[in-house]
Amino acid sequence: MQEKLIGSCIFGQSGGPTAVINASAYGVIRAALDAEEITKVYGAAHGIKGVLDDKLYVMDEEDPAELELLLHTPSSELGSCRYKMAEPEVDDTDYKRILEIFKKYNVRYFFYNGGNDSMDTCNKISRYMESVGYDCRVMGVPKTIDNDLYGTDHCPGFASAAKYIATSCMEINKDARVYDNGMITIVEIMGRHAGWLAASAALATAYGSGPDLIYLPECDFDMNKFLADIERIYQKTGKVLVAVSEGIHYADGSFVSEAKTSATDGFGHAQLGGLAALLADIVKKHTGAKVRGIELSLLQRCGAHLASATDVQEACQAGKEAVEQAVRGVTGKMVAFKRETVDGHYSCRMELLPLSAVANYEKKVPMEWINKEQNGLEAPFIDYVLPLIQGEPVLPLEDSLPRYARLKKVLAK
Amino acid sequence: MQEKLIGSCIFGQSGGPTAVINASAYGVIRAALDAEEITKVYGAAHGIKGVLDDKLYVMDEEDPAELELLLHTPSSELGSCRYKMAEPEVDDTDYKRILEIFKKYNVRYFFYNGGNDSMDTCNKISRYMESVGYDCRVMGVPKTIDNDLYGTDHCPGFASAAKYIATSCMEINKDARVYDNGMITIVEIMGRHAGWLAASAALATAYGSGPDLIYLPECDFDMNKFLADIERIYQKTGKVLVAVSEGIHYADGSFVSEAKTSATDGFGHAQLGGLAALLADIVKKHTGAKVRGIELSLLQRCGAHLASATDVQEACQAGKEAVEQAVRGVTGKMVAFKRETVDGHYSCRMELLPLSAVANYEKKVPMEWINKEQNGLEAPFIDYVLPLIQGEPVLPLEDSLPRYARLKKVLAK
Repeated sequence: MQEKLIGSCIFGQSGGPTAVINASAYGVIRAALDAEEITKVYGAAHGIKGVLDDKLYVMDEEDPAELELLLHTPSSELGSCRYKMAEPEVDDTDYKRILEIFKKYNVRYFFYNGGNDSMDTCNKISRYMESVGYDCRVMGVPKTIDNDLYGTDHCPGFASAAKYIATSCMEINKDARVYDNGMITIVEIMGRHAGWLAASAALATAYGSGPDLIYLPECDFDMNKFLADIERIYQKTGKVLVAVSEGIHYADGSFVSEAKTSATDGFGHAQLGGLAALLADIVKKHTGAKVRGIELSLLQRCGAHLASATDVQEACQAGKEAVEQAVRGVTGKMVAFKRETVDGHYSCRMELLPLSAVANYEKKVPMEWINKEQNGLEAPFIDYVLPLIQGEPVLPLEDSLPRYARLKKVLAK
Repeated sequence: MQEKLIGSCIFGQSGGPTAVINASAYGVIRAALDAEEITKVYGAAHGIKGVLDDKLYVMDEEDPAELELLLHTPSSELGSCRYKMAEPEVDDTDYKRILEIFKKYNVRYFFYNGGNDSMDTCNKISRYMESVGYDCRVMGVPKTIDNDLYGTDHCPGFASAAKYIATSCMEINKDARVYDNGMITIVEIMGRHAGWLAASAALATAYGSGPDLIYLPECDFDMNKFLADIERIYQKTGKVLVAVSEGIHYADGSFVSEAKTSATDGFGHAQLGGLAALLADIVKKHTGAKVRGIELSLLQRCGAHLASATDVQEACQAGKEAVEQAVRGVTGKMVAFKRETVDGHYSCRMELLPLSAVANYEKKVPMEWINKEQNGLEAPFIDYVLPLIQGEPVLPLEDSLPRYARLKKVLAK
């Protein structure tokens, strides 16, 4: 136990929003308000940009009941950013400004909630503060629907997106097989480099109503094999449901979504829709079947109404843990999840990883969890993801519609 | 009370699926199984096509608990069709075949669940059976997410789709405003001729997180005004969320989605995505902003996990009512909903309409419920739709994923 460090804290949200990033916000804010070492709790508007712009909301001014509603409010309530900071050794302008703001508000705790890039930002700030001898504890709270953060069993936000994807695929599968004529449906799922989300569509299949074929960015995409896979099932049943990750790419690394010409039909006109529309067009030309492309788009990452209670609870706990550890003297760490089995049941233990070990690495779906044909998932993937999506949160509703947190967002002077 | 008519019944589902059409199926099947006048209950595979093809499932063979799961199983579990029958006076081939099947199975009751076209089919069959003196009671059960059936306050399926749309728009709105740079988001909602579904996005706005602008097919679409509307809000706030009905059309009646050239930019290349992608492209060129198009696609009509409990209950009740009235001697009618206020609260009473009065008419959103600017809805629309979306059904789950009905579908011999 280190010496007590008394001062205020700043919390910021960064990167793409999720259904539960605000649950982590609640974990941080609630624990910080409760910690006697922390004198004031600031929320940065749009992550680190709010610090640079001196735009901080005073969380102490918020109604506690509204703060609690953050547990079920999707997206990043304080605003997010995608701001890449320079290496402090190369250009320390931003860091000097951050130090200035930290001194202005006597900030001794900094909590940053995000994915790979955000942990990198967090790490750089931590290193800089140490290098200039400013006593400040810097902690990362993980977040990403992509589930690609290194060193943690899984990431807050992933499970709720996975549950949304699985449930939606179950529903789409029912709808896409309703007529007695042929129908091919292609669902595009987020995930540029790692296929965790598209893989989650396999849950729908495992529970009796899901895709016949799933393609991940972990494998090189082969258009001819893709068309042959579809053709084979279409000839047999007349109905095909396909899930593709937005990040599928050819062997040369080029994204299928960005290809201006396809391998099969010289398809080359300007593209309006995304990957699903592009593939639907190619498959339609190849098979002559009725083909529909569906892009889950933002819906999959902000679907708080289908959140996993496990995910909400873990996201909140991760935020709380970051504060409690910082108060005890920890700094330069990210909260991570360690999976354990207790009495035969899934359990999740918090642990701490050095920020430097997490930043900028990407965790992908293990190849041994992908089937040999590279068009589906094996049982170990289902075993991995199933415990994470368990539980339905009791959603605050108003006239049967979501009741989100309404924050006052009082600016600090 | 007419004389008792003893015999078997056929039930069929037709047209586009909904989240609750299977709840009507359950209402019909359960009431038919319970009715002593009805000796056997057949479900037609793919609606009237199953009758023509002699492909009937014996519902008496199903596990009652599985049948009850139909209440929360989206899409048309028996299969649907879009089959337009000829006028019996012009070509009676299909009708003779139907009569043959009715005689084969001693069918004395026919229940058909669908929208405008299906009520037309139902009406033609009713007239034909009467004309040939075959004693058979024919009843229509309403269904359509489009809510455009004439003579009924609302249609089963609409409210659940409306609730899905409102909730999803609330979530999208949160996500689409998260960054500190400009962003325009365009959501495409089903509804080719009537704007009830797109209008339901106004619920999201009324509850604090919804579209700034809504465009319906009830009004002629003006691309220049549309762009000016968006530009005005974008200049003020940097964020715009727009909901458009897929059926918006220019003053000459041509669908915006099918326009190969736009009024504003000579936009004319082959189109892959749908209307949302097309409008996103036009708005991007016009404003220079980041624009995202989102198509709710099949998700909005099969979102059983977000169903309205009111809708589920009414859909089931409509099916039950059709059977009970037929057994009492009624024929040639569609069950319709009459809205009443009991003790200051919404209440729904079943009534009966002649099939001939319902078929092939379309009910649109009243112009006085649309604002003067024709880019939003007025309070009376909210008052109309709000009671319909109330209540959350207790969804049967298996490992936190939907547990749908698993029918044996034993074919009649």
